[in-house]
Amino acid sequence: MSLLVVGSVALDSVETPEASRDEVLGGSASFFSAVATLVGPVRLVAVVGDDFPEEHVEFLGQCGVDLAGLQRAPGRTFRWKGRYLPDMVGRETLDTQLNVFEQFDPQLCQAYRDSQYVFLANIHPALQLNVLRQVERPKLVACDTMNLWINQERETLEQVLRQVDILLINDEEAALLSGRRNLVQAAARMREMGPSQVVIKRGDAGAMLFDDNGVFWVPAFPVETTVDPTGAGDSFAGGLISYLAHTGDLTPSGHRCAMVYGSSVGSFCVEDFSLDRFRTLTLDEVMSRCRAFHDLVHFEMVELTRQ
Amino acid sequence: MSLLVVGSVALDSVETPEASRDEVLGGSASFFSAVATLVGPVRLVAVVGDDFPEEHVEFLGQCGVDLAGLQRAPGRTFRWKGRYLPDMVGRETLDTQLNVFEQFDPQLCQAYRDSQYVFLANIHPALQLNVLRQVERPKLVACDTMNLWINQERETLEQVLRQVDILLINDEEAALLSGRRNLVQAAARMREMGPSQVVIKRGDAGAMLFDDNGVFWVPAFPVETTVDPTGAGDSFAGGLISYLAHTGDLTPSGHRCAMVYGSSVGSFCVEDFSLDRFRTLTLDEVMSRCRAFHDLVHFEMVELTRQ
Repeated sequence: MSLLVVGSVALDSVETPEASRDEVLGGSASFFSAVATLVGPVRLVAVVGDDFPEEHVEFLGQCGVDLAGLQRAPGRTFRWKGRYLPDMVGRETLDTQLNVFEQFDPQLCQAYRDSQYVFLANIHPALQLNVLRQVERPKLVACDTMNLWINQERETLEQVLRQVDILLINDEEAALLSGRRNLVQAAARMREMGPSQVVIKRGDAGAMLFDDNGVFWVPAFPVETTVDPTGAGDSFAGGLISYLAHTGDLTPSGHRCAMVYGSSVGSFCVEDFSLDRFRTLTLDEVMSRCRAFHDLVHFEMVELTRQ
Repeated sequence: MSLLVVGSVALDSVETPEASRDEVLGGSASFFSAVATLVGPVRLVAVVGDDFPEEHVEFLGQCGVDLAGLQRAPGRTFRWKGRYLPDMVGRETLDTQLNVFEQFDPQLCQAYRDSQYVFLANIHPALQLNVLRQVERPKLVACDTMNLWINQERETLEQVLRQVDILLINDEEAALLSGRRNLVQAAARMREMGPSQVVIKRGDAGAMLFDDNGVFWVPAFPVETTVDPTGAGDSFAGGLISYLAHTGDLTPSGHRCAMVYGSSVGSFCVEDFSLDRFRTLTLDEVMSRCRAFHDLVHFEMVELTRQ
């Protein structure tokens, strides 16, 4: 299998009610690719500035990320600063500096063009289209997006969606994109736009997969301590897509397993700041939590009759 | 089995973004008891004013609710008025008139004192205690509560909790009662207060059961149209407790089925205003949706190894 992710590598500053971190490794493509290396190789296309700490590059390399596509541009790295509310779900963005990310122009080297599994993380839809033009006959394309592009670049985004198999989107964005608050209606509308599978990410409520087979709901694993939710959605995506890429199982049942695997990985992500939990996380731990998901939702219904 | 519910019977006025209803049948004990009659008899203890429409009494009677405990007091019936936000989850209370409910003093007739399954809906904890003093050796006691009592009557509420097997509570109330935002931590604290089972109701995220066996999560069924969420939590409670009462299965596995059954019933409740969906709902429909819950969460994990 060959898996490609195009997205951001960033420096995040995060405040939670309990603690804070300054300029730690972040960005959608960082989380995605670190997670993907749990099961196999991954190709990363992103850009960082000349201020980007070498230790982060080394960490990603040690994980097994193929860094041939990591561009270095003159200037500062993309920075994001946010603060989490006491519920550890809601958050406010305090500062966003696009820096070198503003001029990001993803160019795929020849070796990357045959990538069979492609994840277009949340970048400008024109760049997502640009990547799609460069890959040859991928087996599966998935993408993420955000409010900004839905509001300002809807037409380009719709062009992307027509070429995408799986759309990953959070509930607020789903309502915005579809014009429907009800998730069943929203998913149906979004599937009409192109993707045969729509995955709605619902934070601490879990995630839902809508496909020809109906609906599948994987809860968020009930962790006892949430240290930092940043990157949970991108880790979830990394787990989901790398599971599909690694198994090659694109059946409805394979997608369900991939959802659980993604949710398992995402639940580990929040247990520490930045990508720190992935420094020690093993595939055994992830699989063990997948089994715990089974216990979490398992029941055997006994039919009732009226007395 | 003998099942008793003590709570409110009310007249609700409800506004949603799509429609509104004035002075329709509402109240925790109405929803609970109507649902419970799907599987068997239920004893209702509540109070209404002399303005309470006879048609509502007839409806509950036709459902099969034992109305011997429905007191009629001089004065007006309890009224609640609320408006739902566009997400159909958040709501604001526009008006609450306790009226005859303010002087409610639940008295159990001799025939009710042997009730084996008891649900104390959201009423003043002093009244909940009062009911507990009147029942003889119940097999299972469950209760609900609300912010007001947690803030103003904590000591009395804690007395109730020491005598309760199942606490049903929503996520905001759970945080308030336990002093913990994290649901795992909150549930552990609340179980220390008495109840061996804690059920946290999470609205459109579903409900979670915490017991000696761990955690069980039943999602909210993804309905295509939510007409009116009022009463969904009380319907859920009605399904959960009546399932336990009807089967007598108080094992962990029985509680899981009861959670699914409750969630199934709750998901029907929101499909129409007031108790209107229960005018036609059949046990077959509820059981069929229980099987749909199975499809909603079912997966068979394939173990992964690193490439």
